[in-house]
Amino acid sequence: MLNLHSTTSDRWLAQVDADLATVLIDHAHCEKKAAGTAMSLLFAYGGVMAMCRELPPIVIEELEHFKLVLDLLQRRGIPLRTMKPSNYGKQLNELVRKGEPHRAVDRLIIAGLIEARSCERFALLRGHIADRDSELADFYASLFESEARHHSTYVQLACQFDRQEAVHGRLAELSVAEAEIIARGDTLPRMHS
Amino acid sequence: MLNLHSTTSDRWLAQVDADLATVLIDHAHCEKKAAGTAMSLLFAYGGVMAMCRELPPIVIEELEHFKLVLDLLQRRGIPLRTMKPSNYGKQLNELVRKGEPHRAVDRLIIAGLIEARSCERFALLRGHIADRDSELADFYASLFESEARHHSTYVQLACQFDRQEAVHGRLAELSVAEAEIIARGDTLPRMHS
Repeated sequence: MLNLHSTTSDRWLAQVDADLATVLIDHAHCEKKAAGTAMSLLFAYGGVMAMCRELPPIVIEELEHFKLVLDLLQRRGIPLRTMKPSNYGKQLNELVRKGEPHRAVDRLIIAGLIEARSCERFALLRGHIADRDSELADFYASLFESEARHHSTYVQLACQFDRQEAVHGRLAELSVAEAEIIARGDTLPRMHS
Repeated sequence: MLNLHSTTSDRWLAQVDADLATVLIDHAHCEKKAAGTAMSLLFAYGGVMAMCRELPPIVIEELEHFKLVLDLLQRRGIPLRTMKPSNYGKQLNELVRKGEPHRAVDRLIIAGLIEARSCERFALLRGHIADRDSELADFYASLFESEARHHSTYVQLACQFDRQEAVHGRLAELSVAEAEIIARGDTLPRMHS
C-alpha cells in the first residue's frame, strides 16, 4: 500500500533511543514542512481543479499534527528549537526531473514517498516504545491513517499530469532511490535519518 | 477596530456590479494567497512560539474559505481561471522595510491591513447585494468575523517583534499608505481594486 522499497532498520531505532527529544523536535518541523510542501504544490499547480480540492485538506491535517507535536513537546518540557534538517528531503528533491509534466509528477510522488516513509516509521516506533511510553505510542498510532491516506492522494494527483502507467513506473524508480537514501542514513537523529 | 484610514468608494461597487463573476474568481485566489501569506510567515519566523501557535489556525481558516468560494463558483457554473492579480498586494509589499525586526513588523501589519480591507469590503458588499443575491450576502456575512479576528491577531503578533507603541505608530503609517493605494484603485475588477 505504501509503495516503499525497504523497511526501516534497527540502526534508526538506536538513533531514536539515544536522543528521543531531538527526534520529537524534528517531527514538529517535519509536520510544518509537510504542510508547506502541499501549499507550494497548490500555488504551483492551482490551475488544476483536483489540486485545489485535494491539497488544502492535506495542509490542514499537517498543521493539526504540527499543533499536536507542539502540545506534546510542551507537556514534556522540551523547548522547540530550529535544527539542521536531515539530508533526506534535499536528496529526494534533487531527483525531480526538469520540465512539465515530469516535474509535477516527481514532486507529487516524492511528497507521497515522504508520507509513506513517515507512516512506516510511525508504525515501527509505536511498537518499539509501546511498553515504556504509551502516550507517544498512541500519538503515533493516531497519525498513521492520515499519512497513509496522503500517500494515496499524492499518487492519484500525479495521475492528473501523466498516464497512470508512467506515474506508477516513475513511482517504482523513485521508491528504489528513496530506499537507497534511507539506507545511507544520516548521522543526525531525525525522523528521516 | 479595523484600523483602516478610509472607506471603500462607490467606484469599486460599480466595478463589482459590472463583472461579479471575475470578482468572485479573484476572491478564490485571495483566500489562497491569504493562506500562503500566513504559511510563509510561519516559515520565516518559526522560531517564535506565538507565530507557531497563531498562524496555523489562520492558514486553516483561509483554506476553508477558499473551499467555500470554489463551491460557490461551482454552483454558479463559473470556471476557475488564473488571472492577473490587482496591484494592491504588490504595492503594499513594496512598503516593507528591510532588516529585522522592521521587516517582520511590516509584513505582519500589511497582512493585517489586507484582512481589514477584505473585512470592510465584505460588509459593504453584503449590504449592496442583499436584495438581489441573498446566498452571496450570507456568505460575505459569514466571512466577516474571521477576517476581523485575523486582523487583530496579525497586529498582536507584530508586537512580538517590536514595542507596542512602535507597532501602532507603524500601523497608522501603513494604514494611510493602504488608503492611498485603494484610492488610486485598479482598472481590473478585483477584490482589492
